[in-house]
Amino acid sequence: MQQTLPLIMTMQQQQLADLIQNGSRQFLPHLSVDCVVFGFHENLLKVLLLKMKDRDKWGLPGGFVRKDESVERAASRVLQERTGLSDIFLQQFHVFSDPARSDNGDLIATLQQSGIDIEADNWFTQRFLTIGFYALVEFSEVTPMPDSFSEACLWWDLNKIHTLMLDHNQILNRALEMLRLQLNYQPIGYNLLPEKFTMPELQKLYETILGKKLDRRNFQRKITGFGILKRWEERKSGVAHKAPYYYSFDKAHYQQALLDGLQGGW
Amino acid sequence: MQQTLPLIMTMQQQQLADLIQNGSRQFLPHLSVDCVVFGFHENLLKVLLLKMKDRDKWGLPGGFVRKDESVERAASRVLQERTGLSDIFLQQFHVFSDPARSDNGDLIATLQQSGIDIEADNWFTQRFLTIGFYALVEFSEVTPMPDSFSEACLWWDLNKIHTLMLDHNQILNRALEMLRLQLNYQPIGYNLLPEKFTMPELQKLYETILGKKLDRRNFQRKITGFGILKRWEERKSGVAHKAPYYYSFDKAHYQQALLDGLQGGW
Repeated sequence: MQQTLPLIMTMQQQQLADLIQNGSRQFLPHLSVDCVVFGFHENLLKVLLLKMKDRDKWGLPGGFVRKDESVERAASRVLQERTGLSDIFLQQFHVFSDPARSDNGDLIATLQQSGIDIEADNWFTQRFLTIGFYALVEFSEVTPMPDSFSEACLWWDLNKIHTLMLDHNQILNRALEMLRLQLNYQPIGYNLLPEKFTMPELQKLYETILGKKLDRRNFQRKITGFGILKRWEERKSGVAHKAPYYYSFDKAHYQQALLDGLQGGW
Repeated sequence: MQQTLPLIMTMQQQQLADLIQNGSRQFLPHLSVDCVVFGFHENLLKVLLLKMKDRDKWGLPGGFVRKDESVERAASRVLQERTGLSDIFLQQFHVFSDPARSDNGDLIATLQQSGIDIEADNWFTQRFLTIGFYALVEFSEVTPMPDSFSEACLWWDLNKIHTLMLDHNQILNRALEMLRLQLNYQPIGYNLLPEKFTMPELQKLYETILGKKLDRRNFQRKITGFGILKRWEERKSGVAHKAPYYYSFDKAHYQQALLDGLQGGW
């Protein structure tokens, strides 16, 4: 005989029910943030995704904007909850506002399956505009944690990501475009690599983001030209022959290099 | 004896009163768009500003987002109303969301002076986030028109603009930064110059936006390298000696050049 489970809410479900019922008192209506979190691990570009409860759908980490906070603060709060990290490099890049984008049907179905009632005029069912942020993090420092809507939070290889919920593929693609663009005028990598790295590792990072092979000499010349690397006397050990030097980013020159990048090559 | 003017509302004032009373039915709460409209005239970079009614304050053209439109559509609608132009080159560039930014005290004072009542909890008095757009227009094609809050709409020389209302100086500065950044990886100018122009005129545009002198030969080499200019056989007349050739942007190659720019120089 099949057992019928009583509809008892877990603590997490109660938090979720509370968010739906009372969220409109705490958050601005119609507005969310979504974050594309990039990490780099074993020569692959990774993106942090959440798996929706009881569904086969994955999506970007996101959240709402409190009535008394900026959108930057909201994104930073959301990411701290999902990754355990504070002080993440975060960049606002686009507002996604197609009136047809926020079909919350899937989320609402998930809620109803969890025994959470939601009325037709609830704040949560209305149109949402979302502000896209991208974040660059050191992969090994992240402790991924799901939120109330999700049952898993995992790193995905960028090239293995298929259809995401809502317009999240579009948000991801746009973030990647902005990241590539930023590589052209600003030295990044600072947030994606460990403290010490070799020139081949740095080149691999750039190749992975750009999705193409780069000439070794040209790369070395250009990246050195930014004046933001310092070379250690120490070489990487355990390498067969001609062990590569270690490098680090020179924090003192990093800020100036960012400014120079903005002023450009004219 | 001093005359007391009867408080009769003009048609424009009635429209304004209606916006305050009923706008929350038509527009999304807490959300606006503000546009930095750049034009180029007599070798000066110009910005379109509105003068607030009965006040000595100037600000950027802006407006609200209808419940059924995207933010791009909202910005485009606002700019059509202020400039008479449709199909303007518009670029979303940043969301300004400091909770302290939207002190509408000045606007409310203006409204009350016009005899328009406004309650403390009116949608119009609440916190607003604004989405910044910048637009590039051909100066001579614009017919500036004030909105219901303003009594004048005029072009200002960029370098003569002082304190604007709210955080509009910050919005303007950020737009200028983004425009300069865009010059580094994308050929722009298409929207700021007339159909035919000379190389010195194009160089002057770049110098004006970047705020610095450029070397004539380097500029010509780099701009020609984009592959987006076509040279006419015709030279500019009325010039003393060595009359410069006319150029136009080559629309067929422009799109490709934009894509190449995005892929960058690595």
